[in-house]
Amino acid sequence: MAYDLYVVTDEAIGRGRTHAELARSAVAGGADAIQLRDKTLSCRDLLAAAHEIRAVTSAGDALFIVNDRLDVALAAGADGVHLGQSDLPLESARRIAPPGFIIGVSVGSVEEAAFAVAGGADYVALSPVFSTGSKEDAGSGYGLAVLAAIRSAVSVPVLAIGGIGCHNVGEVIAAGADGVAVISAVVGASDVTAAVCGLKSLIAAAKEGGGRR
Amino acid sequence: MAYDLYVVTDEAIGRGRTHAELARSAVAGGADAIQLRDKTLSCRDLLAAAHEIRAVTSAGDALFIVNDRLDVALAAGADGVHLGQSDLPLESARRIAPPGFIIGVSVGSVEEAAFAVAGGADYVALSPVFSTGSKEDAGSGYGLAVLAAIRSAVSVPVLAIGGIGCHNVGEVIAAGADGVAVISAVVGASDVTAAVCGLKSLIAAAKEGGGRR
Repeated sequence: MAYDLYVVTDEAIGRGRTHAELARSAVAGGADAIQLRDKTLSCRDLLAAAHEIRAVTSAGDALFIVNDRLDVALAAGADGVHLGQSDLPLESARRIAPPGFIIGVSVGSVEEAAFAVAGGADYVALSPVFSTGSKEDAGSGYGLAVLAAIRSAVSVPVLAIGGIGCHNVGEVIAAGADGVAVISAVVGASDVTAAVCGLKSLIAAAKEGGGRR
Repeated sequence: MAYDLYVVTDEAIGRGRTHAELARSAVAGGADAIQLRDKTLSCRDLLAAAHEIRAVTSAGDALFIVNDRLDVALAAGADGVHLGQSDLPLESARRIAPPGFIIGVSVGSVEEAAFAVAGGADYVALSPVFSTGSKEDAGSGYGLAVLAAIRSAVSVPVLAIGGIGCHNVGEVIAAGADGVAVISAVVGASDVTAAVCGLKSLIAAAKEGGGRR
């Protein structure tokens, strides 16, 4: 399961494009995973968007992850759910979800990462690695040293999210990230497919350069 | 399963009392079911409140229902989930929930009630039967004639919610409701236990008077 480039959809900065449209363009550019995140939609509308993205990601062989709402993820047939530190606890989600269902967890320290992995997280995401304008509540960034420490401490894929774009994706990969999650660098781009394509190339180059695949 | 008096907790009008405190007082007065409804809490905080109410309702032999969030309901070991018309669709929830899990649905017409029952709803709630100040989005009331028509049309328990208190609970039961759901009449009372007790007596009297039990 590759998490090289993981795109979080956001209609608020999507230049009028819907979650599904953003997902379709991102998958066309080679996004490995799409996360649907929307705290403003009703559950019914979120589920409708999830069904659309499920179709897009299945067709494009990308993973589909729903933020926070495990019930919506299960109802839409998503591959997994992403849980923040104020979302459903991992152990509760693991009890409800079927075997093989992906559960990713946002973490802010080595301790949180180790705890998540001990609880069965399939991946962890350091959030935010840099400060960002996309999530009002994300605070300032934890930085690359924390990222590298988490990478050394746990055995599951480690993603980084927050303030990542073309200018710094190489150093994030070099610091040890298995992949990067992006919002504004892709969703806010005029050409989403091209933005994904460019980031994917930079990630591949950084992995090659570091002797990683 | 009795739904005579079904109390929806609401901290916004609860005079500083928490969901769990409101639930404890309501169960002490004889509430048959407690619904936890809060669209403002984080999922983690909602789950914490749900765990507290689960303990209170189990001790008092009352049903515990969570509004909207099936995942939280399952994680807290609630008896069921209540779904509005913009929440998870009934058929999706039914597929995710284990056998015997209660699913109630808000309806606004005979057609919606019949559709919900055909889809496996365990109860339906006409919402709102009267206009109300507790839910900003509830609109004006559907009235007792619609309530009576739903009662004639379906086989599951029919509740009414919205603007119900001591002054009109008798006519709601007389119109055919199997039970009433209340928010402000209980949650907004200075003495929650006494308010529940009083409503229970009025419901019992109305059922006796109508030759119903």
